[in-house]
Amino acid sequence: MWITTTSFSTRGRARVAFPLVTELSRIGVTGLAVMGANLARNIARRGIPVAVHNRTSARTEEFMEAYSGEGTFTAAESTEEFVAALERPRRIIVMVKAGAPVDAVIQELVPLLDEGDIIIDAGNSHFPDTIRRTQECAERGLRFMGVGVSGGEEGALNGPSIMPGGDPSAYAEVEEILTSIAAQVDGTPCCVHVGPDGAGHYVKMVHNGIEYADIQLIAEAYDLLTHVAGLDAPAIAKIFEEWNSGDLESFLIEITAKVLAKTDEKTGRPLVDVIVDQAGQKGTGTWTAIDALNLGVPLTGITEAVFARGISSLREERKAASKVLVGPNPSEAANRTDLVEDIRQALYASKVVAYAQGFAQMRAASKNYGWNLDLGAMARIWRGGCIIRAQFLNRITEAYEEHGDLENLLMVPYFTEAVANAQDAWRRVVITATEQGVAIPAFASSLSYYDAYRRERGPANLIQGLRDFFGAHTYQRIDAEGWYHTRWPQDGVEVRTDA
Amino acid sequence: MWITTTSFSTRGRARVAFPLVTELSRIGVTGLAVMGANLARNIARRGIPVAVHNRTSARTEEFMEAYSGEGTFTAAESTEEFVAALERPRRIIVMVKAGAPVDAVIQELVPLLDEGDIIIDAGNSHFPDTIRRTQECAERGLRFMGVGVSGGEEGALNGPSIMPGGDPSAYAEVEEILTSIAAQVDGTPCCVHVGPDGAGHYVKMVHNGIEYADIQLIAEAYDLLTHVAGLDAPAIAKIFEEWNSGDLESFLIEITAKVLAKTDEKTGRPLVDVIVDQAGQKGTGTWTAIDALNLGVPLTGITEAVFARGISSLREERKAASKVLVGPNPSEAANRTDLVEDIRQALYASKVVAYAQGFAQMRAASKNYGWNLDLGAMARIWRGGCIIRAQFLNRITEAYEEHGDLENLLMVPYFTEAVANAQDAWRRVVITATEQGVAIPAFASSLSYYDAYRRERGPANLIQGLRDFFGAHTYQRIDAEGWYHTRWPQDGVEVRTDA
Repeated sequence: MWITTTSFSTRGRARVAFPLVTELSRIGVTGLAVMGANLARNIARRGIPVAVHNRTSARTEEFMEAYSGEGTFTAAESTEEFVAALERPRRIIVMVKAGAPVDAVIQELVPLLDEGDIIIDAGNSHFPDTIRRTQECAERGLRFMGVGVSGGEEGALNGPSIMPGGDPSAYAEVEEILTSIAAQVDGTPCCVHVGPDGAGHYVKMVHNGIEYADIQLIAEAYDLLTHVAGLDAPAIAKIFEEWNSGDLESFLIEITAKVLAKTDEKTGRPLVDVIVDQAGQKGTGTWTAIDALNLGVPLTGITEAVFARGISSLREERKAASKVLVGPNPSEAANRTDLVEDIRQALYASKVVAYAQGFAQMRAASKNYGWNLDLGAMARIWRGGCIIRAQFLNRITEAYEEHGDLENLLMVPYFTEAVANAQDAWRRVVITATEQGVAIPAFASSLSYYDAYRRERGPANLIQGLRDFFGAHTYQRIDAEGWYHTRWPQDGVEVRTDA
Repeated sequence: MWITTTSFSTRGRARVAFPLVTELSRIGVTGLAVMGANLARNIARRGIPVAVHNRTSARTEEFMEAYSGEGTFTAAESTEEFVAALERPRRIIVMVKAGAPVDAVIQELVPLLDEGDIIIDAGNSHFPDTIRRTQECAERGLRFMGVGVSGGEEGALNGPSIMPGGDPSAYAEVEEILTSIAAQVDGTPCCVHVGPDGAGHYVKMVHNGIEYADIQLIAEAYDLLTHVAGLDAPAIAKIFEEWNSGDLESFLIEITAKVLAKTDEKTGRPLVDVIVDQAGQKGTGTWTAIDALNLGVPLTGITEAVFARGISSLREERKAASKVLVGPNPSEAANRTDLVEDIRQALYASKVVAYAQGFAQMRAASKNYGWNLDLGAMARIWRGGCIIRAQFLNRITEAYEEHGDLENLLMVPYFTEAVANAQDAWRRVVITATEQGVAIPAFASSLSYYDAYRRERGPANLIQGLRDFFGAHTYQRIDAEGWYHTRWPQDGVEVRTDA
C-alpha cells in the first residue's frame, strides 16, 4: 500500500530539493496560514508524519522552506496529491477562514475521499454550520469533526486547548494525535471528546464568549484604576502582576500586566496610551449572546461585554457626546489602597458570575441540542493552552466532580463563599464607579444578576399583571393551580383560562 | 361585475339567516380569533364592507351571530368564496399565528388570486419571513404587505397603531382603510407607510422590544418602592398615578397604577401579591436583542429586560438560591419622600436611554436593510393605539423634525437636559439599590451606557492591546495612520501590518 507522492515542485520558480517521502502521512493539514502551519508543525514535532497543502502552493513552498526540518512532512501541490499522501482512514485537518471557504474545501475533498475518511474543521466555524456539514458528509459516508482550537498562534504551535466534536468513532481515530499536540496540565491533555456534531465548536464559542467577559472585566478594572485611583499604566501593570499570584491567576491577567508595562518606542509613553480605544471583534461573542437569547438563558456578562465593544467602536459619536453629555459632579476620591483591593474582589466576583452564566448556557445547550456535555471536563480542558486558562478552572472542575449536574455554579460552596466574601467590596466598587461616572456594564450587570438570582420572589408578578392587562396573556396564582385572566377593562372579574 | 356570494351556511347546524350581500367587499379578513375579529369589526364600523373568513367556519358563524349588525359583512365559508367576495385589486388581511400558519394561508390564497392583488400579514411575523414572503409573492405577481399592529384586542377594535411595510403601490390601495381604523392623535392617524418588505414588522418588533424595557424599568421601580421604601401595592399604585401626570405620562404607567390598585377578590390582598413572579414572553424582545447583536448596535436596556424575564422564569432555582446566596448587610433606609422622587427620575432617565438605543437600532437597520425609515414618523405613529403610547413620543418626533438624521437621541438638547437633570437622582437610586441588594439590571445598564457613550476615550485601548498580544489582531495608533502589531512574545518590536 505504500505509494510515492510527488515531491514539491515550484512551477517556474527555482526548484527546491526536498526528500521524497514515500511513507503515507498519518494526518494532513490544508490551509497553511499561521494557525494551520503551526498546527502542522506541532503535529510533526511529535514525530507524526504530516501531509501539508495550501490552495496557493507558494505558501506550501514557503512552509517547507522554513519548517521541513522540524519533522516528516509531505508537501502536496494539488488536492489529489494531498489526499493520496494520507493513510486510511484519511484524517484531514481543514484550517481555513470560517464560512464559505470551509464549504469550498469540503466540496473539493469529498469526491476524492473514501468511506470512513475524516474531515476535521479546526477553524472557528459557527456550530449550526458544523451540524449541517456533519449531516452532509454523513450522507456521503464521510465522518466530519468540528474541532475548537484555542490558544492563538502560540497555542497552535506549542499546545492548544482542543475541543473536538463529532462522531465518537472518528474521535477514536484522531484521539492519539490530538491529545499529543494539546497543552498538558498536571499530566492531563487539554483535549477531550466534547460531543457529537456541533458540540466542539459550540464549546469553543462559549469559551470565546467567556473570554469577552473576562477581558471586559479587566478593562473596567483598568478604567477605575486609571480614572478613580489615579494610577498610570506602569503602576497598574504592577497591580495586575500582583493579582496574578492570587485567586485571579490566569493568562489574561498575566498578559494584562505585560501589555500595560510596555513602553512605546516611538513616543516613550506607555503603549496602551497610544492605542486607539476601539475594540474589534470577530463575532464569536455575538454568536454566544445570540444563542443564549435563543435558549432563554440569562447571559448578562458576556452580552454586556459584546455591547461594550460596540460602544467603543462608536468613536466619533463618543467624541461628540463627550462635549455635550455631562457627568456627575466630582466627589472625593476613595482611599487608594482599599480601592485597589476592592476592585480586585469586584473583578473576581464578577468573573465567577460570568462563568456561572456561561456554564449555565452550555448546560442548556447540551439539553437543547442533545449533546450530553461533561461540563467539568470542559473546565478541565480550558486549564491550559487557551486564552482563558486559569487556576480558577480547577475549582469549576471540582465543583462538577463533587456535585454532578449543577444548575448554577454559584450554588457550589466554594463559589458561594467566594462571592459572599467579595460582595461588600463589589458593591463599593459599583457605588464608587456610579458616583464618579465610570461605566461598569459588566461589574454592574453581574451584581444585578446575583441580586436577582438570589431572590425567592422578584418583581415579575407586576410584569405578568401588566401583560394580562394589555394583552390578556394570563398569569398564575401563588395559591392555586392553573392560569388566570382578569377582565381588566370590562368587569374586573378574574376567570380561569385553562379549565 | 357584481357577483353574488353565497350566503353563510352552517353545515348541519341550525341555519342562521343573514342578508345576502351582493356588493363586493373592499377588504377581507381571514383568521377570526380575537385580533382578527376586532380588526374586521373596526373596519366595518367605519362603513367599509368586509369579507370575513376562518379556517374552521364555526368561528365565522359565531362572529356573524355576534357582530353582523355592526356593519356590512360578507361571511365566506371557503377560501374560494372569500376571494370571490372581494373587489379588485383584492385586499386580504391575514391574521393568524406567526410562523407556518401564515405560509399555509398564503399557499391557499395564491392560486386563487390575480396579478396585483394584495396579501396583508397583520400578525407578529419575524421580519426575515416577511422579506421572504414579499419576494415569493412578487414572483407570482402579487403584492405582499407586512403590517405591524399594536394595541392588543382593545386597540384592534377601537384604533391600533399600525406600521405597514410593503410596496408603496400596495400601501396606496389600503391607506384609506388603514388610516381610518388607526388610533388618531391630535387629528393625525397612527399609521404611516414605514418602508418596503420587512420594514413594518421590524418597527413593530422594536416597538415590542422598547415595551420590554419600559416594563422592566417599571418593575425595578416597583421593586425598590416595595423593598427599599417599604410601601405596599396600594400606596405604590397612588405613586404611579401621580407619575402619570408628569413626564412619565403613558399607557403603561397608567395601567401599572390600575394593576397595583386591584384587590384580589379571593384573598382580599392586592392582586399583584398573589400573582406568581414569573414573566412570560412571546419572543419579539428576543428578536429585537438578536438583531441588535447582528447589527452591532449596543442595546443594553431591552436586552437586560429580556434576560430579567429569563431569570424570573427560573423560579425553582431562585427559591433554592435564596436560601444559600447571601445579600448585603442591611443599611439605613433612605428618606422615603426623596427616594420616591429619585426613583421617578431614574425611571425617566433610563427610559430616555432605552428609547435612544431602540431608535439607534432602527437607524442601523434602516441602513442595513435599505429601508429609508423616517424615525420621527415612527415616534408619531406610536403616540396612540399602541402599548408604549406616551406624551414623551412627541419629544422624539420633534427631535427628528428639528435635527434630521440623528445618530443618538441623547444628543438632542431636550433629552440631553432631561438626563443631565435626572442624573444625580439616577445615580443615587443605583447606589441605594446596590447597597440594599435589589437587582436593577435596566437602571444600571442604562447608566453604564450613558457613562460609556459620553467618554471621548474609554478603556478599549487595553482590550485592543490584549487582542494583539494573544491573537495578533493588530491595533490602531492615536498618532498615526494604519494598523500595527507588536511582536509581544518575540522581540517586542512594533510592525505596521497594512503597508
